[in-house]
Amino acid sequence: MQLSAQQLAEFEETGYLFLPECFSAAEVDVLKAAADAVYAMDREEVWRESNGAPRTAFAAHTYNEAFRRLGAHPRLLYPVMQLLDGQVYMHQFKVNAKAAFDGEVWQWHQDFGTWHRDDQMPTPRAMNIALFIDPVSAANGPLIFIPGSHKSGVFEAGHDLQTTSYPLWTLDRATVTRLADEGGLVAPTGAPGSVLLFHSNLVHASPPNISPWQRTIVYLSLCEVSNHIRRFKRPGWIAHRDFTPIKPLDDDCLLSLAQKRNRAA
Amino acid sequence: MQLSAQQLAEFEETGYLFLPECFSAAEVDVLKAAADAVYAMDREEVWRESNGAPRTAFAAHTYNEAFRRLGAHPRLLYPVMQLLDGQVYMHQFKVNAKAAFDGEVWQWHQDFGTWHRDDQMPTPRAMNIALFIDPVSAANGPLIFIPGSHKSGVFEAGHDLQTTSYPLWTLDRATVTRLADEGGLVAPTGAPGSVLLFHSNLVHASPPNISPWQRTIVYLSLCEVSNHIRRFKRPGWIAHRDFTPIKPLDDDCLLSLAQKRNRAA
Repeated sequence: MQLSAQQLAEFEETGYLFLPECFSAAEVDVLKAAADAVYAMDREEVWRESNGAPRTAFAAHTYNEAFRRLGAHPRLLYPVMQLLDGQVYMHQFKVNAKAAFDGEVWQWHQDFGTWHRDDQMPTPRAMNIALFIDPVSAANGPLIFIPGSHKSGVFEAGHDLQTTSYPLWTLDRATVTRLADEGGLVAPTGAPGSVLLFHSNLVHASPPNISPWQRTIVYLSLCEVSNHIRRFKRPGWIAHRDFTPIKPLDDDCLLSLAQKRNRAA
Repeated sequence: MQLSAQQLAEFEETGYLFLPECFSAAEVDVLKAAADAVYAMDREEVWRESNGAPRTAFAAHTYNEAFRRLGAHPRLLYPVMQLLDGQVYMHQFKVNAKAAFDGEVWQWHQDFGTWHRDDQMPTPRAMNIALFIDPVSAANGPLIFIPGSHKSGVFEAGHDLQTTSYPLWTLDRATVTRLADEGGLVAPTGAPGSVLLFHSNLVHASPPNISPWQRTIVYLSLCEVSNHIRRFKRPGWIAHRDFTPIKPLDDDCLLSLAQKRNRAA
């Protein structure tokens, strides 16, 4: 899978690419079962809401076979290697369940801001992939992007320890207003299996999930290998320390897992 | 303006109709200026957030000429008279500004639930119109509907005095989950001038506005005249007591106001 010249130009201009239904229903089923399995685990990487509902499973590619394969999936890896022009390692891997009714807001931020300040990642030569496991709609807290906001480097930010349970470097309101007045706002929504690639400096936020349905998204944060982090302040399962280049698997790596399981059943 | 047989069938099935860009940019400009004017007023009908930002101007059609005309606009009145099969009066008229960054969530509710419990409106022979003054998107707290949820009458509800500053009869989570599993969720979004007509028993909610832009919607709640409220507990400018049938004006009533002002300027 290679991105076209038009897609590369679009990414450069807006800071993101939306690939609707990049994964099939059968592949999404494998990942949905994997999410249920990791959320049922009692381990330090699996964080919960105060009511016990799953919130985030960190580093799930290190203890679940389907997520291990997803973390090396060619449909995700090749576009990122193309955009970052080099080999990549996994900086962070999260399975995020935005809880029905209670899933919280994420204030306006840049991911590279956190990676740079907390982990001393040298440059924004890194990016995010969001893979929808559930439908994403205006009702369940979609990602909201400010197109073009990746072009101005890292903005000043304050360390928000209050709004959400996860510490976040968030932008001030004047900056968000100025950027949105310039670039507008977009909320890519769509069916399960859809994929969003976005620049590590793209300013984004997401509203709460007021719907009665949990909304799960898998996030892969991939970093060009020479751009690896320099500081190991956060746990290794939040900011990974294995900088080995990922070797993409075959395109049917998830489907073959489903077939293997069906044969075994 | 008459609704087609297809539109009538759609309303019956889903409980709402979306009419994108029903009003022109010139008409929206008149209403935007009117909203700014009423928000600048110091009167009891104009409610504010704790930081002073405008929140709701009640009964604006009684003290602003553009809103007076909008409250009798044929593009809004005739469809409602057709759907309710009779003449209508204005039960409530609100100009709602969902504040940038801070605009609050509205939990799942039915408007008729409030009108029935608080005002003793006898039956749900009444409905809502939402007219977008600003663009409505996933980022700024769109209305979320559960299609078909208007068909089962009034659900039990608890009086929520905490989540938002305006008291609201809200549905329990089990009911919302069941209804959404049956009917799904929709979030009609669109350009200024777009209109949403929805049944007074349609279950709806809206997420917070996390965008840097205020999002203003004008709400007309129209009631068939014989179905007028029986109890006058709430202020007359929240639940009106003038049950005179509204006589629709001409289609150019807003444009002619703009032209008159341009000539005067």
